[in-house]
Amino acid sequence: MSKIIALFTVTATLFSVEVLHGLPYSSFQSIKHHGFKTEPEFTEKYFSQTQDHFNFNTMGNGTFNQRYLITDKYWKKGYGPIFFYTGNEGNIWEFASNSGFITELAAQHSALVIFAEHRYYGKSLPFDKDSFNIPQIGLLTVEQALADYAVMITELKQQLAATDCPVIVFGGSYGGMLSVYMRIKYSNIVAGALAASAPILSTAGLGDSRQFFRDVTADFESFGPECRDAVRGAFHQLKELAEHQDYRRIQSEFSLCKPPSSAQDIHHLNGLLRNAFTMMAMLDYPYSTHFMGSMPANPVKVACETMLSGSDLLSNLRNTAGIFYNSTGLLTCFDLYSLYLECADPTGCGLGLDSLAWDYQACTEINLCYESNNVTDMFPPMAFTETDRKLYCSKRWAVVPRPDWLKTQFWGDALSTASNIIFSNGDLDPWANGGVRKSLSSSLIAVNISGGAHHLDLRGSNDADPESVISARKTEADLIAQWVKMEQTKLQQSI
Amino acid sequence: MSKIIALFTVTATLFSVEVLHGLPYSSFQSIKHHGFKTEPEFTEKYFSQTQDHFNFNTMGNGTFNQRYLITDKYWKKGYGPIFFYTGNEGNIWEFASNSGFITELAAQHSALVIFAEHRYYGKSLPFDKDSFNIPQIGLLTVEQALADYAVMITELKQQLAATDCPVIVFGGSYGGMLSVYMRIKYSNIVAGALAASAPILSTAGLGDSRQFFRDVTADFESFGPECRDAVRGAFHQLKELAEHQDYRRIQSEFSLCKPPSSAQDIHHLNGLLRNAFTMMAMLDYPYSTHFMGSMPANPVKVACETMLSGSDLLSNLRNTAGIFYNSTGLLTCFDLYSLYLECADPTGCGLGLDSLAWDYQACTEINLCYESNNVTDMFPPMAFTETDRKLYCSKRWAVVPRPDWLKTQFWGDALSTASNIIFSNGDLDPWANGGVRKSLSSSLIAVNISGGAHHLDLRGSNDADPESVISARKTEADLIAQWVKMEQTKLQQSI
Repeated sequence: MSKIIALFTVTATLFSVEVLHGLPYSSFQSIKHHGFKTEPEFTEKYFSQTQDHFNFNTMGNGTFNQRYLITDKYWKKGYGPIFFYTGNEGNIWEFASNSGFITELAAQHSALVIFAEHRYYGKSLPFDKDSFNIPQIGLLTVEQALADYAVMITELKQQLAATDCPVIVFGGSYGGMLSVYMRIKYSNIVAGALAASAPILSTAGLGDSRQFFRDVTADFESFGPECRDAVRGAFHQLKELAEHQDYRRIQSEFSLCKPPSSAQDIHHLNGLLRNAFTMMAMLDYPYSTHFMGSMPANPVKVACETMLSGSDLLSNLRNTAGIFYNSTGLLTCFDLYSLYLECADPTGCGLGLDSLAWDYQACTEINLCYESNNVTDMFPPMAFTETDRKLYCSKRWAVVPRPDWLKTQFWGDALSTASNIIFSNGDLDPWANGGVRKSLSSSLIAVNISGGAHHLDLRGSNDADPESVISARKTEADLIAQWVKMEQTKLQQSI
Repeated sequence: MSKIIALFTVTATLFSVEVLHGLPYSSFQSIKHHGFKTEPEFTEKYFSQTQDHFNFNTMGNGTFNQRYLITDKYWKKGYGPIFFYTGNEGNIWEFASNSGFITELAAQHSALVIFAEHRYYGKSLPFDKDSFNIPQIGLLTVEQALADYAVMITELKQQLAATDCPVIVFGGSYGGMLSVYMRIKYSNIVAGALAASAPILSTAGLGDSRQFFRDVTADFESFGPECRDAVRGAFHQLKELAEHQDYRRIQSEFSLCKPPSSAQDIHHLNGLLRNAFTMMAMLDYPYSTHFMGSMPANPVKVACETMLSGSDLLSNLRNTAGIFYNSTGLLTCFDLYSLYLECADPTGCGLGLDSLAWDYQACTEINLCYESNNVTDMFPPMAFTETDRKLYCSKRWAVVPRPDWLKTQFWGDALSTASNIIFSNGDLDPWANGGVRKSLSSSLIAVNISGGAHHLDLRGSNDADPESVISARKTEADLIAQWVKMEQTKLQQSI
């Protein structure tokens, strides 16, 4: 085993060791982040939230404690805008700690900042420890989450004597989708939305199921075609070993704690490996980060260098996966089923309780039937069809997905009546092409961030930031300033 | 009793006898109407609709049969617009038979016409005969109804090869509210809305709880102050009899089948009487109608003439109530509790199963805490406070109303981002001032119909129509033509 440890240490030295994988987001809470120009001191609070907004009968007017973080450090009380982060699939501290742009902007705009935690994530559990049981899980929907935010904003504005303060919503990824939805469904409450890396089209079933892993592949390809070829070659070698049922060799090459013993285990291993590349592509920031795991600066570059570091492709693949799965360098072997969870999201559900909630969402409203096929991407062919999804979700959660629902309910690409939304995307981000890449009108603005990964623009300023993101943030700040001013004028006229 | 019959006959001779009160709307189904310039032949169909759009777990993907009426008689297939009536609290035939304007307009626009029945009304019962039980009633919400329409439109468009056909929604009263909500919440599906007599403000808790019965009173006052005074005087005499517990006299004066025996019975009688005036004010059309009961032409005039027909105010009041409750002239006595139902809507819930559903809606999302007080109106003081509502609804349906919800969810008066909505109101209609009376923008148009009662504009053309409604319908037709053209252009550009 000493060899394995030594190899993993190669990657572990690349960045500081603070976060362990294999833990839910809630474990990240106490992490201290550096590189922020502003260090907001959020206060953690709880809001008494309606359990079921859409049925008055089953839960009565029962409530649960919904967590939110708030800072009025920069706020011009009763006048400055409210910047509201529509929390997504995780502990809200995780998003607050990785969205420094919002507090930097708040300082400029004298804004109140609120980060609201999504129901069924972090500490915002409508039924405490029973939340993930059937049928309690049933109150986890996009609509309930949006209604939570609408009710919370409305009530907090009253409590804080802020009824005339314009509200701008912010969100990244699924949180960005929620920001778009808040703007279109609750324009009475929300004056504008910055939706960073929000795949509102692909998750609504619009687009190509091959797009995601094709774009992950493209990131590695852009380092050099030899990187892509090395990855493909390694997966091919793994396939051959699997075909010969050479499980001992696979265990040894991949430093698995237990040998695989079935095609299912191999499938799982392939998923685990593919997921490492996915994460590195998404989180390909120019500096080391602790967000959805720990990453070195420029992880795609690090991965490609690792893939090309010697002629033993399988070792290289293992070490590349270790960049993500063994960032601490402390693991002595990979335990297949504790490091990676197969679920209804082929891009990964994470781990811990949050992953249960996300799996349920991917089984109901959010469409994520993305496939790899080894033709348009470098990964083993791994389909995840609507039929696969239906089978899995029926078995796991006793639900049947409704593939057309999200498009019907949240408009898909029929956004012509919407306004005041920024769709920002980085071209390194495999989610980008599942979102809006071209401006749709003078107030539905697409911002492209060349060399940007998954909602890089939401992160705080960093010396390593490319010019593109500095410029994108400037564009975003200007648009938001316009919206705030417009709304303040309107509200003053109506007084 | 012969005297009673004779008196009732006075009103019964004023119009043809076709409809019996005391029956649910479903009994109206076979009525033949005259005076329409177009006589559409709707086909009755059923759509397999999702029982619960907002919870994937409790009902699975269970469905129910939702009724709709359709005619393609005028439709230019695949190109002409779709005129979709967002059914409200009753049998859909009732609305189709009383909204001739929509089919007249369809003939001009080569439109497909669909009237969709609201869940829990008519024959669209998600749980058949169990629909009105607790907890089955819980799936009766505005949101579910809107989602029904969104899903139905989307699927029918596909089935009918009509995906490029613009959809305009129409609705009267609560149906008009639903049309507004469809336009603001589903702009991806609906290009414009004609919301006739839609009290979107008062039902959201905005405005004055005295407005409704003040405006009912105003209608009778406009006949002449002596009419209002006679009504007030009659209620005063009733009050004095009740204070002396002269229940036999009250039975005799009001031709009650049984004598009242408690303050509760008197309260109920007052409610029943007030309701007759409400209905005559709402349905004060210039020709006789069969909608929500049977009415002579100009019922307010008929009522005032009856109120002033002799010096016996109590007899006059009884006979005036008979215009509504005994339009057939066949009743020999009034049975208090079978003719009128007290519920969470002080303007009346109707009777039959539909009234149960409406009561539930008035107990949950729709705020109808309207009071009469004998100062700003001519009726006995009858409060219905939020506290009264809460007590009643908790007891009746085990629900607690959420008075702020409708405003949060459906925007209240914060409509500045909306577009393509006509808010039409007649100034005879007591609901009018609970709605939008002034245009809010160049595409949020208020249309006032002088001398118009409850959504008169939706009715088919009639020789007795006042100029105002002819002109209103022209304005509406022009705006709708613009919206259709705009949408057709947009859809063609996107091809």
